[in-house]
Amino acid sequence: MRSTQSLRNGDTPSPHPRIEDPHFHSTVSLQKLKRFNSLILVFRLATFCFSLASVVFTLTNSRGYGSLHWYDFDAFRYVFAANAIVSLYSLFEMAASVWEISRGATLFPEVLQVWFDFGHDQVFAYLLLSADSAGTALARTLNGGDTCRVSNAFCVQSYTAIALGFAGFLFLGLSSLLSGFRVVCFIINGSRFHF
Amino acid sequence: MRSTQSLRNGDTPSPHPRIEDPHFHSTVSLQKLKRFNSLILVFRLATFCFSLASVVFTLTNSRGYGSLHWYDFDAFRYVFAANAIVSLYSLFEMAASVWEISRGATLFPEVLQVWFDFGHDQVFAYLLLSADSAGTALARTLNGGDTCRVSNAFCVQSYTAIALGFAGFLFLGLSSLLSGFRVVCFIINGSRFHF
Repeated sequence: MRSTQSLRNGDTPSPHPRIEDPHFHSTVSLQKLKRFNSLILVFRLATFCFSLASVVFTLTNSRGYGSLHWYDFDAFRYVFAANAIVSLYSLFEMAASVWEISRGATLFPEVLQVWFDFGHDQVFAYLLLSADSAGTALARTLNGGDTCRVSNAFCVQSYTAIALGFAGFLFLGLSSLLSGFRVVCFIINGSRFHF
Repeated sequence: MRSTQSLRNGDTPSPHPRIEDPHFHSTVSLQKLKRFNSLILVFRLATFCFSLASVVFTLTNSRGYGSLHWYDFDAFRYVFAANAIVSLYSLFEMAASVWEISRGATLFPEVLQVWFDFGHDQVFAYLLLSADSAGTALARTLNGGDTCRVSNAFCVQSYTAIALGFAGFLFLGLSSLLSGFRVVCFIINGSRFHF
């Protein structure tokens, strides 16, 4: 699988570069990789913003001077933990993306990087979806009970935090699609250069 | 990518078959594919059994002669729907697997089949995890309230149904890994024969 890549890199440069020239192709492919990485970076940024917002909305969700706190509910604690983990992970992945775009090399060795990204995207997407679903079920139950009659703002803020978490999940899912594509490219070409 | 495969198939058979002989390799590869498909079939069967059991446990979960029914709770309806969808899907996939093992050809055209399997495995795994998480959050809330004091059997049966759903998710996730592997093989070789 690596043979195509090394052949390409090992070719002697022709004195008159044409469209089919491997070095020309390599420049185009580098630019396309940069654009692809920028798209991943945008998705990571969106995931980070939404999950961080969800963390903030959950953390500040206490009402009634000591009577109603988010941490009294298991599912809200789960929502908080999952979103906190995802926002930290997104921050790290953003740094890795910026590193890759600016230096043209991955932070970890390439094979490790593509599998690390894809694996963590998948696991954290499952985690976030699970937490947000649990949070939704609890919020809907509270909505039918006394809690929301006592403090409607608490319920509204809970819903907002969960909705932000779902938005984070959406962008994490999109990142996961792109990092899955990178894994497939790596398996085929033996490099993350896919064009 | 298809060239390797077609070259292999287009070779003239040698009069003295050796280990490296393409036709010998093809038979080995066919046997390995059969074993791989049997493993998928086992996972599908496990998914089907667990999700069907979850459906049955949810459906029969009514207590107190008209006062306590599973369908009065949103999250339990979600658990029921997700498990019912997954068990129907698993039944269909089992039929497709048996067809493939017995006839040596996929039910749909090959490219459609591998993507259909992988795509649906992924989506239904997310659906099932989401439903089971929502169900867990509700069951835990009920556990702290009056419902479980009135009828403990109702809560125990809910927990059982959800646990069965999680087991179904586990096997669906494993099937998804294998069908993802088939997709990658298909992209590399242009066929689901992977060895």
